[in-house]
Amino acid sequence: MESLIHLTPKVKPQILKGTRDFLPTDMAKRNFVMDTMKRIFQKYGYDTIETPVIEYAATLTGKYGDEGNKLMYRFKDNGKRDIALRYDQTVPTARLVAMNQHNLPMPFKRYQISRVWRADKPAKGRYREFYQCDIDIIGTDSLLAEAEVTAVINDVYQALGFKEFTIKINSRVLINSMMETIGVDEAQRNEVIRRIDKIDKIGTEKVVELLKELITDKQAEAIGEVISLTGSNAEKLAALKKFDTAQIQEFLEFCEAFNIPESVIMFDPSLARGLDYYTGIIYEVIIPGLQLGSVCGGGRYDDLCSMFTNTKLSGIGVAFGFDRMLVAMEELNILQDIKLNSQVLVAYFDKESLPFALKALQEIQAKGVNAEIYFEPAKIQKQLKYADRKNIPFVVMCGSDEVTNDEVTVKIMQTGKQKTIPAMQVGTYLASFV
Amino acid sequence: MESLIHLTPKVKPQILKGTRDFLPTDMAKRNFVMDTMKRIFQKYGYDTIETPVIEYAATLTGKYGDEGNKLMYRFKDNGKRDIALRYDQTVPTARLVAMNQHNLPMPFKRYQISRVWRADKPAKGRYREFYQCDIDIIGTDSLLAEAEVTAVINDVYQALGFKEFTIKINSRVLINSMMETIGVDEAQRNEVIRRIDKIDKIGTEKVVELLKELITDKQAEAIGEVISLTGSNAEKLAALKKFDTAQIQEFLEFCEAFNIPESVIMFDPSLARGLDYYTGIIYEVIIPGLQLGSVCGGGRYDDLCSMFTNTKLSGIGVAFGFDRMLVAMEELNILQDIKLNSQVLVAYFDKESLPFALKALQEIQAKGVNAEIYFEPAKIQKQLKYADRKNIPFVVMCGSDEVTNDEVTVKIMQTGKQKTIPAMQVGTYLASFV
Repeated sequence: MESLIHLTPKVKPQILKGTRDFLPTDMAKRNFVMDTMKRIFQKYGYDTIETPVIEYAATLTGKYGDEGNKLMYRFKDNGKRDIALRYDQTVPTARLVAMNQHNLPMPFKRYQISRVWRADKPAKGRYREFYQCDIDIIGTDSLLAEAEVTAVINDVYQALGFKEFTIKINSRVLINSMMETIGVDEAQRNEVIRRIDKIDKIGTEKVVELLKELITDKQAEAIGEVISLTGSNAEKLAALKKFDTAQIQEFLEFCEAFNIPESVIMFDPSLARGLDYYTGIIYEVIIPGLQLGSVCGGGRYDDLCSMFTNTKLSGIGVAFGFDRMLVAMEELNILQDIKLNSQVLVAYFDKESLPFALKALQEIQAKGVNAEIYFEPAKIQKQLKYADRKNIPFVVMCGSDEVTNDEVTVKIMQTGKQKTIPAMQVGTYLASFV
Repeated sequence: MESLIHLTPKVKPQILKGTRDFLPTDMAKRNFVMDTMKRIFQKYGYDTIETPVIEYAATLTGKYGDEGNKLMYRFKDNGKRDIALRYDQTVPTARLVAMNQHNLPMPFKRYQISRVWRADKPAKGRYREFYQCDIDIIGTDSLLAEAEVTAVINDVYQALGFKEFTIKINSRVLINSMMETIGVDEAQRNEVIRRIDKIDKIGTEKVVELLKELITDKQAEAIGEVISLTGSNAEKLAALKKFDTAQIQEFLEFCEAFNIPESVIMFDPSLARGLDYYTGIIYEVIIPGLQLGSVCGGGRYDDLCSMFTNTKLSGIGVAFGFDRMLVAMEELNILQDIKLNSQVLVAYFDKESLPFALKALQEIQAKGVNAEIYFEPAKIQKQLKYADRKNIPFVVMCGSDEVTNDEVTVKIMQTGKQKTIPAMQVGTYLASFV
C-alpha cells in the first residue's frame, strides 16, 4: 500500500453481483470440503497443477461454443494483447499438457480446485466467479482408469459424510451399439443423445415424443423401452443382452474389485450426458431426496488436447459441483460442527500474570492445539465474548490466584463448566479433547 | 466444454509473459511452503478469508498511488461496469472488514494467501500474476499483538527449515522521538524516513549526505550516529536512552515471554520502512548469506480501513515474500526432498492378477499411505519408468508367483533392493516407511 490511502475520499464498500466475500466461518466449511477432497485425490496418487487466471484470449475462445464466447471475460491489456479470464479448468489443462507432454508422467493424473469466471446473469446458485473442482486421467485407454475414478467419487462422498448418494453410470459404447442395432442413422445420433439427456427434466414420454420428430416411431419406442428400464444392474444388463454390454459388464467387475459397494452404483441406460465428445463410461452423481440436480459428472473423452497438439491423448474427467455440494451438506446438516481454527483462548487479567499466561499458551500450542491469548488484560466478560464470537470451545483463565498456585482454570464454553488443574498439565489436558 | 472443440483449428499453446504454469513438482514445493505457513498461522488462532478477484475499479483505484493506478489490470465488463483485478490483499480486506465489522470478532486475526495481478514489466523474479501471503491483526492497540506477530514470523521460518534468519525490528515511536529531540521539522519527517530507508542500497554515509540536503548537517550527523549503531540489542538501547525507547523495551520483554530466541531478533535503529502509515513496531526479515533483500516485512499501521469506513481500526500487518522465500529455500537446499503425492505404485502383469493387486492397493491405502495401481498389465520396465517419473519411492509387484503364494514383492526404488512379504502385511510394512 502506498502513502496516498489516507487522502483518498471514502468509497462505498461493495462487491460486484455474482461475486462473493467469504468470511472465516464460510472458509472453515469450504476448506473442510476442499481439504477432504484433496486428501482423497492424493490417496489415489493424483497431483495438482496450476494455470494462470489470465490467458491469451486465443487460447480460450472457440473452445466453449457460442455461449462460451459470449460469457467469457475479455479485455485488452496495456500492451494491446487480447486477454481472457479462465473460463474452465479443462482447456488450460489441455494447453499445459500440450506444452509439457514430455515433462509429465503418462498417464497424467491431476486434480485441480480453482476459480473460473463467466459473465453470466447472476441467480440463486449461479455466480460470475466460482470454483471448479475436477480430476482427470490423461493418456490411457484402460477401463481400469474409469473404475478408479468411480472409486475416487465413492470415497469423496463417503469421506464428506454423505450417507446416501448414487453414482449413475452408462456407456457410450452401449448407447452407440443400441443405435446401431435399432438402425439410427449415424448423423442423427448426437442429436438423439441430446434429446435423451432431457429425461430428468421432461420424463421418458416426452423424450420419446421428441425422438419421434427425428427418427421413426418404431426406433423412438425401442429407445424409450431401453431408457425406461428398471431393476437391479444385473437385471438391466440382462434385458440389454442384444446390445454391446461388454464394457459396462467389465467396468462393474472392476468396480467390485475396487470394493465399491454395489448399492452405490446405478447402471442407468437413460444417462446420456449431452456433450458429444464422450466415448466410454459416463457418470453423474445425485443425492437422493434433494432437488439439486447432479453434484458430479463426467466421463471418458476421446481426445482432450486435440485443440493444441496432434498427440492423441484419451482420458477421463469428472467435475465435482463444489458449491452445489456445499448446499447439499448444509441441507443435510453435515457441516454444522465445523469450527474455526482457534481451539483455546488464554485469558489474563493483570500485567503481572502475562508471563504465566504466555507460558500456558506455549504449553497448549506445544501439544498441537491451536490457541491464542487475548491481547489485553480485559474484564472476563469481554474475553469470554471474544471466545464466543470465534466459537472457541475452551478458555484458560490465568488470574492472580491461579498464578500463585501454579494452576489454571479451564472453562468449557459449551457447558459453562470449569475445572482447575496444575498449569503444567494444561497442554495434555486440552489435547485430549481437541 | 462444448461440442465445438474438435472443429477448432489448432492454436499454438503459449502463456502470457509474467504468468506461470506450475507442474506437479512445482506445486509440491509450493504447497509444502503454503501448508507449513498456514499451520503456523492456525496454531496462533488466525482464520482465513477470501475476496473476489474481480472488484469494482472504484474500490481499488487511488489506493496505491500513481504506480498502482498505472499497473492495475482494468477493463469494462459486458454491463459497462469498470472492473479491476485484485492488486493486493490489503485493500480488499479493508473493504471486507468495513462491510462486515459487526459480523467479525474483534480483534480480527486473518491470514490470506492468494494471487494478485500487476501489469508490470516482467523480469527475473517479477511476475504479472503472483501470490501474496500476509497476516493482519485488525482492531487492537496492544503491543502484545506486535510480539505475537514476531512469534508467528519466528515459527514460520523455523518450521520451514531455515537455520539462520534475522527479524530486524525498530519502532516508529522511537524514530519520531529521535527526530523530535534532534529538532527535525514535523513536515520533513516522512521524507527523512524515506531517505533512511535507502540505507541497505546506498550505505550510511550516502544516507547522511542525502539528509544534509534536507536538514541541518548537525541533525543529519546525529541521525547518522543513530543509524550506524552496532552491538547487542541491550547496548543499542543503552546508547539511545535520551530518546523514547519504552516501546522497544516492552516489546522485547514480550518477545522474551513468547520464548523467541534473542539471537533471532535484531533491534536495528536504521530500519525505517519507507511508507508513512506505520506508527509502531516495524519488521523486516533477512536471510544472512543470501543476496535476496527482505523476505518478510510490515508493521503497526494507524488505520487500515479509513478508505472505507469511519470506524478507527488500528492494526498490524506483515507480508511474507512467497516467491522470494521459495528461491531462498531452493538455494539453501531445503526443498530438495519434497515428494509428489503418490508413495506406492502397485504393478500387475496379467489380467488374472488384477483382483489380487487391487486388494494389495486397498491394504496400503487403508494404512494411510497414498498409493496407485498402474492401469495396464504392462512390462515391468514400463511400470518402473512411470514410478521413476513420478518419483514414487516404492513399487509393489503382484506377479503370478506372488498371487500363488499370497505374497507381494516390494521394490525400494532408491536402492533397487527388493523384499518379498506376505500380502496381508504390505500396508503395515509400507506405512512404517512413509
